[in-house]
Amino acid sequence: MPADHSALSLAQALICCPSVTPEDRGALDVVAQALSGAGFSVERPVFSEPGYPDTPNLYARIGDRGPCLVFAGHTDVVPEGDGAWRYGPFDATVADGLLYGRGAADMKGGVACMLAATLAFIARRGGTFPGSIAFLITGDEEGPAVNGTVKLLDWARARGERFDHCLLGEPTNPGRLGEMIKIGRRGSLTGKLTVLGRQGHVAYPHKAENPIPGLLRLASALVAEPLDGGTAHFDASNLEFTTIDVGNPATNVIPATARATFNVRFNDDWTAASLGAELRRRLEQAAGNAVRFTLDLQPSNAPAFLTQPDAFVDLVSRAIQAETGLTPTLSTTGGTSDARFIKDACPVIEFGLVGETMHQIDECVAVADIERLTAIYERVLEAYFPTKR
Amino acid sequence: MPADHSALSLAQALICCPSVTPEDRGALDVVAQALSGAGFSVERPVFSEPGYPDTPNLYARIGDRGPCLVFAGHTDVVPEGDGAWRYGPFDATVADGLLYGRGAADMKGGVACMLAATLAFIARRGGTFPGSIAFLITGDEEGPAVNGTVKLLDWARARGERFDHCLLGEPTNPGRLGEMIKIGRRGSLTGKLTVLGRQGHVAYPHKAENPIPGLLRLASALVAEPLDGGTAHFDASNLEFTTIDVGNPATNVIPATARATFNVRFNDDWTAASLGAELRRRLEQAAGNAVRFTLDLQPSNAPAFLTQPDAFVDLVSRAIQAETGLTPTLSTTGGTSDARFIKDACPVIEFGLVGETMHQIDECVAVADIERLTAIYERVLEAYFPTKR
Ligand SMILES: [Zn+2]
Ligand SMILES: [Zn+2]
Repeated sequence: MPADHSALSLAQALICCPSVTPEDRGALDVVAQALSGAGFSVERPVFSEPGYPDTPNLYARIGDRGPCLVFAGHTDVVPEGDGAWRYGPFDATVADGLLYGRGAADMKGGVACMLAATLAFIARRGGTFPGSIAFLITGDEEGPAVNGTVKLLDWARARGERFDHCLLGEPTNPGRLGEMIKIGRRGSLTGKLTVLGRQGHVAYPHKAENPIPGLLRLASALVAEPLDGGTAHFDASNLEFTTIDVGNPATNVIPATARATFNVRFNDDWTAASLGAELRRRLEQAAGNAVRFTLDLQPSNAPAFLTQPDAFVDLVSRAIQAETGLTPTLSTTGGTSDARFIKDACPVIEFGLVGETMHQIDECVAVADIERLTAIYERVLEAYFPTKR
Repeated sequence: MPADHSALSLAQALICCPSVTPEDRGALDVVAQALSGAGFSVERPVFSEPGYPDTPNLYARIGDRGPCLVFAGHTDVVPEGDGAWRYGPFDATVADGLLYGRGAADMKGGVACMLAATLAFIARRGGTFPGSIAFLITGDEEGPAVNGTVKLLDWARARGERFDHCLLGEPTNPGRLGEMIKIGRRGSLTGKLTVLGRQGHVAYPHKAENPIPGLLRLASALVAEPLDGGTAHFDASNLEFTTIDVGNPATNVIPATARATFNVRFNDDWTAASLGAELRRRLEQAAGNAVRFTLDLQPSNAPAFLTQPDAFVDLVSRAIQAETGLTPTLSTTGGTSDARFIKDACPVIEFGLVGETMHQIDECVAVADIERLTAIYERVLEAYFPTKR
């Protein structure tokens, strides 16, 4: 347990729990103890799914009237990785003004800042403020994300919980605290393309049907034209081939099939369905009657979504500006996050620490950034729940 | 040992030895016994090479003056394969006029016909004829071909053996005995193309460098234009991609490298060196400064070669015509054979049984074809060593 309820102490207490998905190792106890001490009611639902490990989650709320501001995050971390750390990945060492450890940036640091800001805010208000604060903390964000935020939201909905705005504390800043808020995320769609041929000997190509030239043609057709030119808040959609595999070890044999996998990060011009249809159209056009293929689109739970810039985004931006002097970019870049699930419950935006070292050896954040992010979150709370004048 | 020295009995005796490369299982004993009984001196050199199994070979000769006609062939066979045979692959069953068994077509049948024809010819001539006959028989044709014909030819050269013409008994006829003589073979060149990129996350493509689009571009450039239009005796050279392998299981990761392998069957417009240079030129042109790649050309021991149609080809063609009524096509199609090595010792052409079922389950040849091929080889011997008038 932390020595005090400062953000740094809380972050260190969290990092010292080696909570590599699906392990918890006491991480959610740190969160639960801090919040229940401040008057939150705390629930610890564990979700199950055949074929996946059970995963612990935490829901906490203080207040029973609207508006309800939600802080969301995760306490699980990715493994320490291959390579030597300067300081132990679960030691939470502070050196030269930096806090080192797995999860320092992604996102035990962010969770600690939410907690410290909330405790300070509630203490300052003497326990009363016009609305509610909730915490949605999962232990399954870095893993399959099956027993995490999706089920926690369902569980809360079933209890009748209603949320007005959510601030997710993922490390959104590329290099400097205050640079970037994420107001949406691109969608993700994975496809597997198989071109069918007929096996044979390379010396008798007329008796075989090599699928590789067909694959070259179809794969080239998928990337020949841009999918779109970007939208108001999104970059252009982008398709990357991630692998091509034929697996034929015999240099004198024409193979029977050739397979490629691609992933598209798509903007709000598309749904997974409309994008899948466009990709299929391109493939069919390129194939004509000459190439036999199948396209297997993986079920996508990552749609593109945008939280329209509004008063809440302005409120958070002003809090950031006041502490950092920077006007944050409203971005939709990068990978997916649990915001893609939360957006169905209420408007959600993301702002946290600097993500530069996340998932890497020697993950670290500046102690000064932890203090400033805490101050930003406090300003958000103050502005979200104004005192009556 | 065979019941008699008919071609069918010899073929059956050979098939009953399960001589899957590098095993011999008595196959060369059948050859040796037949030839030594007819007055041949028979040598059985076994060749070795680190990393390869020792392999038995046979060299036999009768006569000590020129011209020397060589019969060449192999007694090793490919494995029986996966699947049920109608008759045991090493049982040499005759049913409905067909001789079944592994090697019936490729090429124990052909070896048996050479032996039977030669024994009949020598008996008919009372042991004297104006020249020499030699046999070059290897047990390493279907395998690595390292301890086979190459070394047997070196060994014979070192002994001072000189050859004038060679008839290799591979199954050259696609569907019908008499259709096709092979007077050359295309060369074979294998290349491995590697495109280099930089690994990264699919959501941040600007921080990575996907090698797959570069591979698509380079591979397409290799097959965009025909290599040539064919030559007087050869089809157009042909390039087939045999595999592409990236091996990246993560659908959210851009891979670091992409690899493709291709094989070219090339005609006498090219040497392996000139062809390699042309392929490299095409790749460099397509790559420009945009794609980093390496091209690894495998050492090729399969050059394109042609035995110019001449009096010997005519002699064999006439023998075929006399027995079958067909005028054989002079072809250079199909895979490689040991003729690519023999051509350095003397002019070599190939004529044998029907290859339709070679390397397959239920490999078989018509008993009538065995008898007719024996008669053709006898006619070749009669014409090659004419009696004085
Ligand atoms: Zn995270
Ligand atoms: Zn053969």
